[in-house]
Amino acid sequence: MKKIQGGVCAPLGYKANGVHCGIRKNKTKRDLSLIVSDVRAAAACVYTQNLVKGAPIVVTKRHVADGYAQAIVCNSGNANTCNADGEQIAEGMCDLVSRYASVASDDVIVASTGVIGQPLSLNPIEEGMPQLVGGLSDMGSNYAAQGIMTTDTVSKEIAYSFTLDGHECKIGAIGKGVGMINPNMATMLIFVTTDAAISPTMLQKALSADVKDSFNMVSVDGDTSTNDMVAVLANGLAGNTCISEVNKDYTVFRKALNKVTTWLCRQIAKDGEGATKLLECKVTGAKSKAVAKTVAKSVIKSSLFKAAMFGADANWGRVLCAIGYSGADVDVSKVRVDFKSKSGELAVCRNGSGIPFSEEEAKKVLSEDEIEVLIGLGDGNGKATAWGCDLTYDYVKINGDYRT
Amino acid sequence: MKKIQGGVCAPLGYKANGVHCGIRKNKTKRDLSLIVSDVRAAAACVYTQNLVKGAPIVVTKRHVADGYAQAIVCNSGNANTCNADGEQIAEGMCDLVSRYASVASDDVIVASTGVIGQPLSLNPIEEGMPQLVGGLSDMGSNYAAQGIMTTDTVSKEIAYSFTLDGHECKIGAIGKGVGMINPNMATMLIFVTTDAAISPTMLQKALSADVKDSFNMVSVDGDTSTNDMVAVLANGLAGNTCISEVNKDYTVFRKALNKVTTWLCRQIAKDGEGATKLLECKVTGAKSKAVAKTVAKSVIKSSLFKAAMFGADANWGRVLCAIGYSGADVDVSKVRVDFKSKSGELAVCRNGSGIPFSEEEAKKVLSEDEIEVLIGLGDGNGKATAWGCDLTYDYVKINGDYRT
Repeated sequence: MKKIQGGVCAPLGYKANGVHCGIRKNKTKRDLSLIVSDVRAAAACVYTQNLVKGAPIVVTKRHVADGYAQAIVCNSGNANTCNADGEQIAEGMCDLVSRYASVASDDVIVASTGVIGQPLSLNPIEEGMPQLVGGLSDMGSNYAAQGIMTTDTVSKEIAYSFTLDGHECKIGAIGKGVGMINPNMATMLIFVTTDAAISPTMLQKALSADVKDSFNMVSVDGDTSTNDMVAVLANGLAGNTCISEVNKDYTVFRKALNKVTTWLCRQIAKDGEGATKLLECKVTGAKSKAVAKTVAKSVIKSSLFKAAMFGADANWGRVLCAIGYSGADVDVSKVRVDFKSKSGELAVCRNGSGIPFSEEEAKKVLSEDEIEVLIGLGDGNGKATAWGCDLTYDYVKINGDYRT
Repeated sequence: MKKIQGGVCAPLGYKANGVHCGIRKNKTKRDLSLIVSDVRAAAACVYTQNLVKGAPIVVTKRHVADGYAQAIVCNSGNANTCNADGEQIAEGMCDLVSRYASVASDDVIVASTGVIGQPLSLNPIEEGMPQLVGGLSDMGSNYAAQGIMTTDTVSKEIAYSFTLDGHECKIGAIGKGVGMINPNMATMLIFVTTDAAISPTMLQKALSADVKDSFNMVSVDGDTSTNDMVAVLANGLAGNTCISEVNKDYTVFRKALNKVTTWLCRQIAKDGEGATKLLECKVTGAKSKAVAKTVAKSVIKSSLFKAAMFGADANWGRVLCAIGYSGADVDVSKVRVDFKSKSGELAVCRNGSGIPFSEEEAKKVLSEDEIEVLIGLGDGNGKATAWGCDLTYDYVKINGDYRT
């Protein structure tokens, strides 16, 4: 498996673009993105489990019910959620793509991200559509990645090549975070493209299995968004035998998909609103995988732990505290905790009790921008990883006045 | 029911004191408190549900197993949690109280609050004991309230008088917050005294019922502490007929207890670490009380909502979002939301969608230091209130380097 350039345009037969159409006030920020496949593609999506669902989620569910799609359109700056005319507007966005890009309206996946509860007008979208479609190119992945950003500080795109029965296949993705991030069965906005041939059923199976260990294990602020969506298009242009059952090729595809999603998880956590540090919580020795996941997610979500990491303070008691209230079946007297970064590894807790450590050494380890929290439960073989970030002044600043 | 002075010393037969013994470095901060009843008292406690439990919790459970206690000792500056010798130290604290205050060691309730996982020495406690016991007085409630503070900015004490079968009874309490606050079945450190006569069984019943709607509905940061404890002593000196069944007197006692606990809930939320605002989320029209509680707690815990309130930003979409991911059975299309403070009331959402409002008016309402979020679910008669606070720069500052 090889990392390659090109993002969502790396696989054969995909074009993309992103433009500023006027939904966002700042003219230097792209706010409308489009990804189009040359041919209809197998499509799989997972969505937020929030009862309050963005109108684009409702419309997209209808459009991919048949397992196929050809385009993904997405605006930033407005979530089109909790608006009385939301579905009508989301359908309108698909109709505009259909008209300008010659794709059936019900083959369009639509997504929106931004403020909840502010009416979204079709006018700027209609005005921007000629430029958006006219500029579609197989080099356009980064523009598309920019067009879906909200409080993200960097655009996020990734691609890998891999081999299925002798055919070179590619998989690429773009994604955005970085607030209201605590996915439940789905997450954020992630658009994945591949030229591998795989049936809609197997594509959905692969995606649903993947998100449980990837995006669902990310938390920036514990808030599950109303508009989370991961969409995958597979247009089959790589020429491999179509994957239509669980076999060796399916396993290879799962691995390729997981390479892309895990990279995005780390990127989204690292770019979490206001974050200065990526926190990676690795739990081993759990009674079961479920226990490991519950513990990892509880620690990564703790405001107190996150603030301590911002201050490079080895306050491991907060890790124990978060393990204890997680609700998971844990024998506290067996717990061990270490902090690790590229500056070293520090043992702080054994058998549920503190052990002496050098505060100077701790400061050194925790001052890096990527910190691993290693938790051993000494109770079995279950393991899991969760990703998060520190809690900083800037998180408060960004969210104290988000709408202006 | 009348509000009175005196805190835990307001009821007949209680003395208290708080001193600086040296657990905390800052010599101006009291760090050791004691409350003693002239006679043995019926005792009831509720404790944290965190699997990681402070050693004092374990020891206190043993000491009140018979339903009686006579004294409460508590230190701040060190939680005596995750220490290999923790129980021995906690028993040692009780022995010291026994020796100096002539109370049986197993009639002492012991509590600790502060940093987790740092060894606690008995030396300063032994050195401070003569001064602590020597200074016990029926005017000492405020010193005791000061001695249990950690990041609290104000000490918290309250008392009420009420009447049971013609006898004037009194109930008083001291409490501390204000971080690692997301109680589960118990909370923080709250010590309540009363001179009402009530059996241990009925006292425990009253306390267990009360915390479900009082302390368990408070959240400062979503972190459930390892050392939460609410303890009530009832020494019966008021002379009323002992309450030993659910009757009219029990109902009066429950009301008096709830007056005290609700006041403390509001105080603890308002003094939440770094907080500038008390947030009170009142949910009505829910399918059941359980639904109302789940919704209220979800909103009050949302980092995004808390940060918006800090910025006086009427970003009600975050309220809808938190309702949606709460897991409660809610019909989103019926939800209404209003913000209210002493500067006015503002309608922002009807039938799950936004309605126009004046941003100027919103700023005025949300700039007050006590904000009510009124949520109507239009779906039944269930209601609940939860208390919390805004998320501020100071929360991050306080917790970025708590141990130093």
